Amino acid sequence: MVARGSADNKGQLLPHLFGVERAINQNNLPVNIIFVVEGEEESGSGNLEPFLKEHRAALQCDIAVISDSGMIAPGVPTLLYGTRGVVCLEIRLEGPNVDLHSGIFGSLVANPANALARLVSSLQTADGKIAIPGFYDRVRPVEPWERELWAGLPKNDNDWLEMTGSPVLFGEAGFSSLERIWARPTMDVNGFVSGYSGEGPKTIVPSKASAKISFRLVPDQDPDEIRALIREHLSKTCPTSVRLEIVDHHQGRPYLVRSDSPFALAAKRALEATFDKPLALVRAGGTLPVLQVLKDVLRVDTLLIGLEWMDCRVHSPNENFPIENLRLGVSMNQNLLTEIASFSPKA
Amino acid sequence: MVARGSADNKGQLLPHLFGVERAINQNNLPVNIIFVVEGEEESGSGNLEPFLKEHRAALQCDIAVISDSGMIAPGVPTLLYGTRGVVCLEIRLEGPNVDLHSGIFGSLVANPANALARLVSSLQTADGKIAIPGFYDRVRPVEPWERELWAGLPKNDNDWLEMTGSPVLFGEAGFSSLERIWARPTMDVNGFVSGYSGEGPKTIVPSKASAKISFRLVPDQDPDEIRALIREHLSKTCPTSVRLEIVDHHQGRPYLVRSDSPFALAAKRALEATFDKPLALVRAGGTLPVLQVLKDVLRVDTLLIGLEWMDCRVHSPNENFPIENLRLGVSMNQNLLTEIASFSPKA
Repeated sequence: MVARGSADNKGQLLPHLFGVERAINQNNLPVNIIFVVEGEEESGSGNLEPFLKEHRAALQCDIAVISDSGMIAPGVPTLLYGTRGVVCLEIRLEGPNVDLHSGIFGSLVANPANALARLVSSLQTADGKIAIPGFYDRVRPVEPWERELWAGLPKNDNDWLEMTGSPVLFGEAGFSSLERIWARPTMDVNGFVSGYSGEGPKTIVPSKASAKISFRLVPDQDPDEIRALIREHLSKTCPTSVRLEIVDHHQGRPYLVRSDSPFALAAKRALEATFDKPLALVRAGGTLPVLQVLKDVLRVDTLLIGLEWMDCRVHSPNENFPIENLRLGVSMNQNLLTEIASFSPKA
Repeated sequence: MVARGSADNKGQLLPHLFGVERAINQNNLPVNIIFVVEGEEESGSGNLEPFLKEHRAALQCDIAVISDSGMIAPGVPTLLYGTRGVVCLEIRLEGPNVDLHSGIFGSLVANPANALARLVSSLQTADGKIAIPGFYDRVRPVEPWERELWAGLPKNDNDWLEMTGSPVLFGEAGFSSLERIWARPTMDVNGFVSGYSGEGPKTIVPSKASAKISFRLVPDQDPDEIRALIREHLSKTCPTSVRLEIVDHHQGRPYLVRSDSPFALAAKRALEATFDKPLALVRAGGTLPVLQVLKDVLRVDTLLIGLEWMDCRVHSPNENFPIENLRLGVSMNQNLLTEIASFSPKA
């Protein structure tokens, strides 16, 4: 995080970080920097918000900078001004208290795996719309300038097809791929667990069936409100022949800031100087719950200037990062600090 | 299997089996007995039919006797005159070639687990009817005499509720529990496998999703015909955004014989003498593919006089068998052989 004014090197610096190291060594850091390092993002960052609150005074700053995002294409400097939110949960259905012989009991009691298939498919229509009443009420439409801007970005549906190996691309009708990823909500089953999973058949009625599910949210959907809508829908839709338990997993709010603020414009200058190309303004389909936490606790926006490529296989086997971007990242951060130091603070 | 006429003890006897032992020791076995022992029933009995065909001449007999069935209630002698058939298969859906980050790819490609939920729920309506076109075309209606007979059997829905722990009983509307188990087809998901199954959330689009499914069939449904209908429905219903593979597992035909044949009446006398109670005539919800194989290869019907109770937890943890029925089984088989020997062969 960057606090403008003359650098005073108060000890929150980590001098071995890229770019910052050189600035510090030369004793010419143009602004104060505070590093906050945490490793819990994939499990919900439960300790981050309390930490920020406890150290609120020491962490006072003007802008946050995070590089946990991607470039629209290799070599194209990219500023991210919005991310999606997320609500994760698990649906657990229980029927009989033990797996039963399907020849007898398949005709007597509800099969929780059959019921789970029906319940899960009630969450979404065949054409990819989420079917929970009220779910789209607060979805902010894609702005005309965004639609136009994104249509010109160097993204190609064929690249995604090749990258995923899926037979065709699929998603909500009426939106381009980028619009779907960046500005439309989704529902994904992340995993099923039920009954027999070994080789060959086993003619049982499983006693339990569960599905892990994640919903991606967009501005201005609120995770608490959406979670309540999901719970209400599931409770109303689930038949009484099985017992329903809904387990809450983590959630995060969607995030959207102006892409023409003084800090965003400073980032634009720094990135264009580094990569010698015009900046791409993008949103992201993933979720960075920390953005809203920083906003709430420290009252700062965040510049998102990450350097991963689309084929970095985030969260997948063979996750990777382009080596050339380590060096470019050094220059980018040097330029950014200089640019941030160069403009007048708000009145 | 029993071949009537004077006993000649040709060496297919297993003299240590209950009841038969005493008869043999006393040298007064009233009929010939041929034992066929196999241990592959749970995996489809792939070797039984070839074995029976190969030894067709040596296995010539008048009636087969099998005790792989149950009593309608403890102490009530029970003759089974019909069983359901079965068709087992596995639905496998593939989307992307690797698990993907749901934040990006959940909006780009079809999620095979979402698609599986929809596809599986297309197989059955919410009220328990199977929704595959043509599925019920050959279902033989429950006879009025069966409906009346079964309504008087000592079975209680509360017992089943207690036995299973399910919140309520559930099944096709318009039929009693026994009618559903014995004379109506069903569809059960036996297991789901997809994506992440560990603790907590993982926001992925799984690359694959599969469901093992069994259908119980009733007279006069034909497993080959039903399998073709299922395949046709799945192929038509599955979206092109995922790849569908249907893996065939085992199948077995439903079975139904007259309950007033000379052999059935001999069994009735033997069982009523053994248990000192009127015989219950029942069908079963499970499947015994061997019945139709014996009919096809050896041209014999089978007397099904099993001694398990409803709470024997067949195919479940803590499967059990009542010890007192071991001794009663000795008497039952002695009486049966005597009764079978006592009536005149068909003209």
